[in-house]
Amino acid sequence: MIMKVRDMGIKIGQLHTGDKNCITDVEGVKVGHVTLDYPINDSGDAACTGVTAVLPHTGNLYREKVTAASYVLNGYGKTTGLIQVEELGLIESPIMLTNTFGVANVTQGTLQYLLEQNEEIGITTGTVNVVVGECNDSYLNSIRHFPVKPEHAIEAIHKASNNNHAEEGAIGAGKGMMCFGHKGGIGTSSRVVNDNDGEQYIVGCLVLSNFGKANELLKERYITTSNNSESTMSPTDGSIIIILATDAPLSSRQLKRVIKRCGIGLGRTGSHFSNGSGDIVIGFTTARKIQHHYDDTLEIRQQLRDDQEVMNSLFMAAAEATEEAIINSLSQAETTTGRHNHIVQKLLF
Amino acid sequence: MIMKVRDMGIKIGQLHTGDKNCITDVEGVKVGHVTLDYPINDSGDAACTGVTAVLPHTGNLYREKVTAASYVLNGYGKTTGLIQVEELGLIESPIMLTNTFGVANVTQGTLQYLLEQNEEIGITTGTVNVVVGECNDSYLNSIRHFPVKPEHAIEAIHKASNNNHAEEGAIGAGKGMMCFGHKGGIGTSSRVVNDNDGEQYIVGCLVLSNFGKANELLKERYITTSNNSESTMSPTDGSIIIILATDAPLSSRQLKRVIKRCGIGLGRTGSHFSNGSGDIVIGFTTARKIQHHYDDTLEIRQQLRDDQEVMNSLFMAAAEATEEAIINSLSQAETTTGRHNHIVQKLLF
Amino acid sequence: MIMKVRDMGIKIGQLHTGDKNCITDVEGVKVGHVTLDYPINDSGDAACTGVTAVLPHTGNLYREKVTAASYVLNGYGKTTGLIQVEELGLIESPIMLTNTFGVANVTQGTLQYLLEQNEEIGITTGTVNVVVGECNDSYLNSIRHFPVKPEHAIEAIHKASNNNHAEEGAIGAGKGMMCFGHKGGIGTSSRVVNDNDGEQYIVGCLVLSNFGKANELLKERYITTSNNSESTMSPTDGSIIIILATDAPLSSRQLKRVIKRCGIGLGRTGSHFSNGSGDIVIGFTTARKIQHHYDDTLEIRQQLRDDQEVMNSLFMAAAEATEEAIINSLSQAETTTGRHNHIVQKLLF
Amino acid sequence: MIMKVRDMGIKIGQLHTGDKNCITDVEGVKVGHVTLDYPINDSGDAACTGVTAVLPHTGNLYREKVTAASYVLNGYGKTTGLIQVEELGLIESPIMLTNTFGVANVTQGTLQYLLEQNEEIGITTGTVNVVVGECNDSYLNSIRHFPVKPEHAIEAIHKASNNNHAEEGAIGAGKGMMCFGHKGGIGTSSRVVNDNDGEQYIVGCLVLSNFGKANELLKERYITTSNNSESTMSPTDGSIIIILATDAPLSSRQLKRVIKRCGIGLGRTGSHFSNGSGDIVIGFTTARKIQHHYDDTLEIRQQLRDDQEVMNSLFMAAAEATEEAIINSLSQAETTTGRHNHIVQKLLF
Repeated sequence: MIMKVRDMGIKIGQLHTGDKNCITDVEGVKVGHVTLDYPINDSGDAACTGVTAVLPHTGNLYREKVTAASYVLNGYGKTTGLIQVEELGLIESPIMLTNTFGVANVTQGTLQYLLEQNEEIGITTGTVNVVVGECNDSYLNSIRHFPVKPEHAIEAIHKASNNNHAEEGAIGAGKGMMCFGHKGGIGTSSRVVNDNDGEQYIVGCLVLSNFGKANELLKERYITTSNNSESTMSPTDGSIIIILATDAPLSSRQLKRVIKRCGIGLGRTGSHFSNGSGDIVIGFTTARKIQHHYDDTLEIRQQLRDDQEVMNSLFMAAAEATEEAIINSLSQAETTTGRHNHIVQKLLF
Repeated sequence: MIMKVRDMGIKIGQLHTGDKNCITDVEGVKVGHVTLDYPINDSGDAACTGVTAVLPHTGNLYREKVTAASYVLNGYGKTTGLIQVEELGLIESPIMLTNTFGVANVTQGTLQYLLEQNEEIGITTGTVNVVVGECNDSYLNSIRHFPVKPEHAIEAIHKASNNNHAEEGAIGAGKGMMCFGHKGGIGTSSRVVNDNDGEQYIVGCLVLSNFGKANELLKERYITTSNNSESTMSPTDGSIIIILATDAPLSSRQLKRVIKRCGIGLGRTGSHFSNGSGDIVIGFTTARKIQHHYDDTLEIRQQLRDDQEVMNSLFMAAAEATEEAIINSLSQAETTTGRHNHIVQKLLF
Repeated sequence: MIMKVRDMGIKIGQLHTGDKNCITDVEGVKVGHVTLDYPINDSGDAACTGVTAVLPHTGNLYREKVTAASYVLNGYGKTTGLIQVEELGLIESPIMLTNTFGVANVTQGTLQYLLEQNEEIGITTGTVNVVVGECNDSYLNSIRHFPVKPEHAIEAIHKASNNNHAEEGAIGAGKGMMCFGHKGGIGTSSRVVNDNDGEQYIVGCLVLSNFGKANELLKERYITTSNNSESTMSPTDGSIIIILATDAPLSSRQLKRVIKRCGIGLGRTGSHFSNGSGDIVIGFTTARKIQHHYDDTLEIRQQLRDDQEVMNSLFMAAAEATEEAIINSLSQAETTTGRHNHIVQKLLF
Repeated sequence: MIMKVRDMGIKIGQLHTGDKNCITDVEGVKVGHVTLDYPINDSGDAACTGVTAVLPHTGNLYREKVTAASYVLNGYGKTTGLIQVEELGLIESPIMLTNTFGVANVTQGTLQYLLEQNEEIGITTGTVNVVVGECNDSYLNSIRHFPVKPEHAIEAIHKASNNNHAEEGAIGAGKGMMCFGHKGGIGTSSRVVNDNDGEQYIVGCLVLSNFGKANELLKERYITTSNNSESTMSPTDGSIIIILATDAPLSSRQLKRVIKRCGIGLGRTGSHFSNGSGDIVIGFTTARKIQHHYDDTLEIRQQLRDDQEVMNSLFMAAAEATEEAIINSLSQAETTTGRHNHIVQKLLF
């Protein structure tokens, strides 16, 4: 049995985790994976990739939007949909993850899903903004063959549930990713914070890890064994997509402040946000649904005050949850063989 | 009698003006000017400058902050205080205007005013963020002599009232400014917008205009006379500070969207936000006061929906009010003589 | 014969136009259009849309990149590729334009084109960043039917030439667009600026116009006839994509300064960058090609000084060229009938 | 003798330090301190503060500017001058550090110094942009009494030399600062990086540390003793100003990428960029001086390619140097007594 790092006695940070130590600890958040793993031809090409869908809540995501923000740690990436997220502070689609060349097909599939679900889009109301993040899995996956199709996005959305907290590592979009010269992919974690009024909030994180050279990992923080083989892989720079979910009532400005701290967690693992990385954070809060169809001019919004200590706790939670999600993505990922028999080893702890 | 452009039959835009066509149409907003105009020495140096204070409301500005935002159209400027405005979306001081080299003394004076008013600052509570904008009046004013002192800032704040809507042109910080090769300075205007629920909001604008070459002015939009002398002045590039006030309930994100449209009004006069310009917009809304001393963790905020037509009306109001405030600053400014008998002519309409 | 506005005696701005008054006045820049215009079914659905490709130069765009920048005037849009443009200051693909729901397919087609042209991508070198802009043509075009396919993107790239300066209005991505309540679409123009050393630079602009209510147009600047029918269309807010090309040697920071001024030209037509608009500027300079495959650590870059007057001329050129390109998109666009016999009238001048 | 952390066997990161492990390892960079430490009155008020000046090179900083960038990690701060740094990518003044309420006086003094040195400013040429960073030392220092005067800024500039690498801790602007509940202040360090052509570049860092609760420090990374007393201080949130100097040839865009990584180093110490922090990075490169008085339109600039491995080394250097400078600021700072006999203890390692 593969153990999460916390089961191995590695404690990251000060705050308590949520029940499942998973992004789905935030009520309503659902995750779905489609994993592709098959030979494409006799020349050694292989699909070793996938799609991961993170759904902010269980309802209709277009008709009930969530407050959102994004933050670019390093922008060598092809994530799509963030211009509108920044302007309006809203997300109105599932947040999709896949490989770099799968972005167009995943966007197309997600769009088809949303159009089917909402017949008014493009007819009586406006358009819809799809958010897709990506990392480059081309060491293991034959990305030029475009194994990811629109229907895989739709399937990942349909498979999304609130109970898949056990699924991490080489799964979904994480299938072909590598991190610190070893196998990376999907990792998740969560934290609980309290405010002065006794209210409790959850911060959940899910990462798609695909960054870092082996010698950058700050091993002393996590690794006790000396049995890891020297990683000789020298891939082009990788990336990480970090999704941060919370149920704390925050404005998009505040949420952006919180997700900016995910970079702290990333940095603590050893990353330097390398030149070729698309290191991008996408955050949302489920505290309030914003109705698409709405007649009133005014809205009432409840939000935390910036100067209350709970804001600092949320900052800490974002850093800790990101760090632990990354380390989970390493500890949970099995050694994987991809195109042309490229092998990426599991990191031993 | 000097007439405002609207009295001369020049109508800018579609929306109605407020009662006074002045930033003080936004309830509670107060404006104060201190004008300095005297010879400094026998070598021709002269003070031809001043300070203008815009107070967002009539109460204690530190203890009751206003939601705010800023937007840099071109950043060749020394405006101070905006980093914190951007982070927290708040203004907690009067907004001060002066000449480029007066910023430090005006900051110092404003700080002293705020410390005197709030004995807890720096003792039992944190610090205070002062916002000061500036333009370079060195053609008319001997800026190297630092005629503006801290006490002038305090005086401008004390003189601020809600009734000085007649004061425009070569007054306060506007004393030594020039615009499109002619005399510029302080100008103000306002607009009224309505939402679908019958609610009415005011947008008020005050500018410190100090930009543009004579041949950049889009004369056909405003000027009927052919009696303006050719302006042969070729100063270094100037600047404009635009202050936009409203009583519409907006978040700082929304307010930033609104004030971004002030650049439209500026562009319509003929400006190209020249290289050497510090073209900066500072906006605030009086709709809600944010208490400095507050025990609750949560706040309730009311705000307009982005997708309601009133938002577009606010955008239009920001553009129109800015354009009209600039043209008012020109039409109201008298021919002025400054250091070394430099003369800047009034623009004829 | 449809006339460009300049042929009708409408002069916009002070600067001279380039030879063709077209973005292709910038040497090497090529434009290609694919227009789709056919009934889809018996229920009235129709394709009334297309794809437009702007190629920064005649060589291999991936192996020889151009310095680039982007600027978001209002971010209610789905343009893709800008995160990497901002991080690296480079464009390495054709700049593609299409309708909102065509972005994924156009991205996919453009990617396929680039992969075919560059066999090393995804194998021995990294990935490639595709830039696609969009507007919503859903009044005339049945966007839910996805008439734009990947092959249309490839076809538009192949059709791109340096000689299609006559093609404006309801063509390519402009086929189904509308502007100020009348028919809009593709428009283009150019300006010539001189520096103090006698060097001449070209600024070319191409827009995809799809914004504005009829009553927002500042008619007095352009229109002499009173024969325009009242536009009763009340579409959701539109958008504009502005592409600015130049051969002036600029860094990405400087280019961003220049393209920011496109918003001035947009504002002068009457736009207020409405809430529902994706008003986005993408700029590039052909002055220098940046080699993808390159062994040296250092590069030598030549660039204009910010404080030379030519910089202000470039600012003016950006504003003027944008305004004229928009007005050309209106004057060149024929009355168009689309889905469900929706008709958008040509604007009379 | 107080030891730097490296003398105590604490090794931070992988890269080699420069000769002095100090920001002055970057050739030409000079640092000067003025420390104020005296009782103000009989009520317990005391000056426990100062000014620190960092000069990018030994020449006239206004006439020979340096390429620069800034990055705001958290913007609860009053640092001034950054708007123009961002627009033009230049610094043309010493970079000054002081306490929060000393900013205006330090700006004024620095301005006076620059005006005296450059008689043309404000007469035949434009103005000058002064950069001043600050932290709040109000626990030890009676900031409401404004002990810092303009002349202290001038004195710190005059005292600046390239040989003061031994001065860290409770000195200059660092006199009254605290960090992780213990005494902080000035710290410095440096790193050496190599490119593939055998060229060597230096990255130097100087921090003014004033942030963090005692329990946030990631002690396991640095501390071996258990003799530290429990810090019971609960100050309002603090700040850090980070100055990063290098001689690597970088554009302002690239420099911004490099200094963004200082946040990694800050995060690794345990900081979460708390709500009340002004955590701000200011970077410059001495690789090229930009002449203020210059007749040519074009400049030639040499710069590193983003995709060369040296860029990643610079990222790593920025993170490592920042972390070590912070820890040095702690290890070098002596227990300090300030106003009302407030005492801040030295941290034991």
